[in-house]
Amino acid sequence: MIKLGIVGYGNLGRGVELAISQNADMQLVAVFTRRNPASIKSGVPVLPIERVSEFRNKIDVMVLCGGSASDLPQQGPEMAAMFNTVDSFDTHAKIPEYYEKMNRIANENGHLSLISVGWDPGLFSMIRALGESVLPQGVSYTFWGKGVSQGHSDAIRRIKGVKDARQYTIPNESAVIQARTGEQPKLNDAQKHTRECYVVAEADGDRQEIERQIVTMPNYFAGYQTSVHFISADELARHHSKMPHGGLVLRTGTTSSENTHKMEFGLKLDSNPEFTSSVVVAFARAVARLAREGQTGARTALDIPLAYLSPKSAAELRKTLI
Amino acid sequence: MIKLGIVGYGNLGRGVELAISQNADMQLVAVFTRRNPASIKSGVPVLPIERVSEFRNKIDVMVLCGGSASDLPQQGPEMAAMFNTVDSFDTHAKIPEYYEKMNRIANENGHLSLISVGWDPGLFSMIRALGESVLPQGVSYTFWGKGVSQGHSDAIRRIKGVKDARQYTIPNESAVIQARTGEQPKLNDAQKHTRECYVVAEADGDRQEIERQIVTMPNYFAGYQTSVHFISADELARHHSKMPHGGLVLRTGTTSSENTHKMEFGLKLDSNPEFTSSVVVAFARAVARLAREGQTGARTALDIPLAYLSPKSAAELRKTLI
Repeated sequence: MIKLGIVGYGNLGRGVELAISQNADMQLVAVFTRRNPASIKSGVPVLPIERVSEFRNKIDVMVLCGGSASDLPQQGPEMAAMFNTVDSFDTHAKIPEYYEKMNRIANENGHLSLISVGWDPGLFSMIRALGESVLPQGVSYTFWGKGVSQGHSDAIRRIKGVKDARQYTIPNESAVIQARTGEQPKLNDAQKHTRECYVVAEADGDRQEIERQIVTMPNYFAGYQTSVHFISADELARHHSKMPHGGLVLRTGTTSSENTHKMEFGLKLDSNPEFTSSVVVAFARAVARLAREGQTGARTALDIPLAYLSPKSAAELRKTLI
Repeated sequence: MIKLGIVGYGNLGRGVELAISQNADMQLVAVFTRRNPASIKSGVPVLPIERVSEFRNKIDVMVLCGGSASDLPQQGPEMAAMFNTVDSFDTHAKIPEYYEKMNRIANENGHLSLISVGWDPGLFSMIRALGESVLPQGVSYTFWGKGVSQGHSDAIRRIKGVKDARQYTIPNESAVIQARTGEQPKLNDAQKHTRECYVVAEADGDRQEIERQIVTMPNYFAGYQTSVHFISADELARHHSKMPHGGLVLRTGTTSSENTHKMEFGLKLDSNPEFTSSVVVAFARAVARLAREGQTGARTALDIPLAYLSPKSAAELRKTLI
């Protein structure tokens, strides 16, 4: 049995508990939280984060379920000093820096830390690496959605007169079709996606001004085809409370003047946090095994042989999946 | 520079030469053949297979491009005794047995042999392993085509009165749609595919009898929706001489009572041998590197971390692809 712990019990932490229950070779030992443990209902003991060090030799891999903005930059290194870890750190620009820190601390303490797994970064990173390795003369495209972008929803919420908001990122179908032609068009993020905003305005909110501020917001919406829909708080709760997501990684490339090839990996997810959790848990299995073999330091999804993700033996995999 | 050799110069061998030329960190040293070397035009020395042992220390990885039916079962072990190797052995049922033999011989001689890479087995095997590891409560589907099946084309050619034939395996669109629903329908190979046959009959061939023999042929066509088209040798040469292929690996699974997820990996290939060659060459890079690290024995695609396929450094990959 692989013994796992969870640090942080938000959407991702709950998803990890669910995912562990789907894997017969895994056991959840405890959940650690900064909140009042009594406020959390879980099938296993819920303990204050301060008690985590008591579990040093009782947990094979600690699954870090905090956010990338403020939780993981602090919790990651702290936990890597005590445990083997896996996390879904997803601030792409800061991954090299986070990796260096985790690698140093994990190595110093004889632990193994797998960072930035989930579907992007994670599965999509793997497919991007596979695509450009197999078809070096080609172009890669990543499309996101349809799904809720937390960052864009938050940006709308910060506008004066906005009570609540939900933003969907949607792949632009005509851009997907262009990419699939194999003619290697150049497409930037704004050409690849449209943005759909559902906004609950305050009673005295100036809707015209809110819409103007959204569509002209630099980095977030300016340059994108953006639609804004004002709805009631009730409608938002009824129709926009789920967390679907998905996306597409596409590689097209040529092997000779006459031959073009297309590789495409797509995800359609009813629940972004539950799927991400399932990915994280499969990779936790790999961490447990590689740590048992004596590996230490930090790793990403690109460093993990796929056989380590599966509960099947190597011989079983060769027989049933190859 | 990674120094490669090619054994066998058919469609796959020619594709491997092309693929090597697309990778700046690789060099093709020589091609080895059982045919008369003078009959082969290549950019590098073409030598009789008997001289291969002279290259023991001059080639990092030997790329085995023979067929799975009779070439590789003999050539694989012979070459693994002298070189690190990579091959695309694709007789699924015999992979465990081939693996055991290659593993023993490669280990005895201090070499590393990666077997059965290409797109199926190979990329599709990897995606199947990934899918069932990430979504343990789910179902996987593999669809092949549209593409030429050499085995089925050969089976038609053996019928009395048939001069030549080409068989396309085509995914059944309604089965693909059913699989994508996420309702986990059971679908066998005959339900998932249709078979389209283009047949050149001998002048005195009995077309009705040929068609009857095709559609009722056990294992190959019986039970499948099969269409038979009689065409001229000229038409066959004009419209059916390319080797397109492709396929789809689909995994649907649930993480809770209300949430279903879909993972889909698809390939559309203008040339089956050229794409297969590109996959083999990317994996040859991994073999060279892992062998340099001292690994020996046999491996499959599931044993190779994706970072080893890429010419980029680990730091570059973290910065640009994760």
